[in-house]
Amino acid sequence: MATFMDVHHGMDGITAEELEAAHQADLAIERSEGVTFKQAWADPASGTVWCLSEAPSADAVQRVHERAGHKPDEIHSVPLSV
Amino acid sequence: MATFMDVHHGMDGITAEELEAAHQADLAIERSEGVTFKQAWADPASGTVWCLSEAPSADAVQRVHERAGHKPDEIHSVPLSV
Repeated sequence: MATFMDVHHGMDGITAEELEAAHQADLAIERSEGVTFKQAWADPASGTVWCLSEAPSADAVQRVHERAGHKPDEIHSVPLSV
Repeated sequence: MATFMDVHHGMDGITAEELEAAHQADLAIERSEGVTFKQAWADPASGTVWCLSEAPSADAVQRVHERAGHKPDEIHSVPLSV
């Protein structure tokens, strides 16, 4: 397992309810791909959302997000954290 | 206080030691600006670092990072999280 930070752009004006709904959609299917979404943060002004996950691969993160209806624009492996 | 996600680009090849040193440099001075850096993640392959903080303003985050020698490329207010 590795840690990933994925980034969604174009989410201008996202609301707390929309972020929660998107997160719940991920949580509902993440187990089938071996992914654990840990936290997400949103900046409605710039339309950016960051999701932190533990997953077997970037492809697994991509598949969960795609199946949940919100394909990410970037997926980064983040082997370092403090 | 608000939550901020700042982003540093161009950090290609950053090592665990370099990330730790940068974080410690922030922690050493953050109190003078009322900032609390909570966590940071790095992707050495794309050269991206994300820092999560609690701060009175984006300017305060900027000042800490500048004084510590690593000006961020983006600072986002992240009022939403799950």
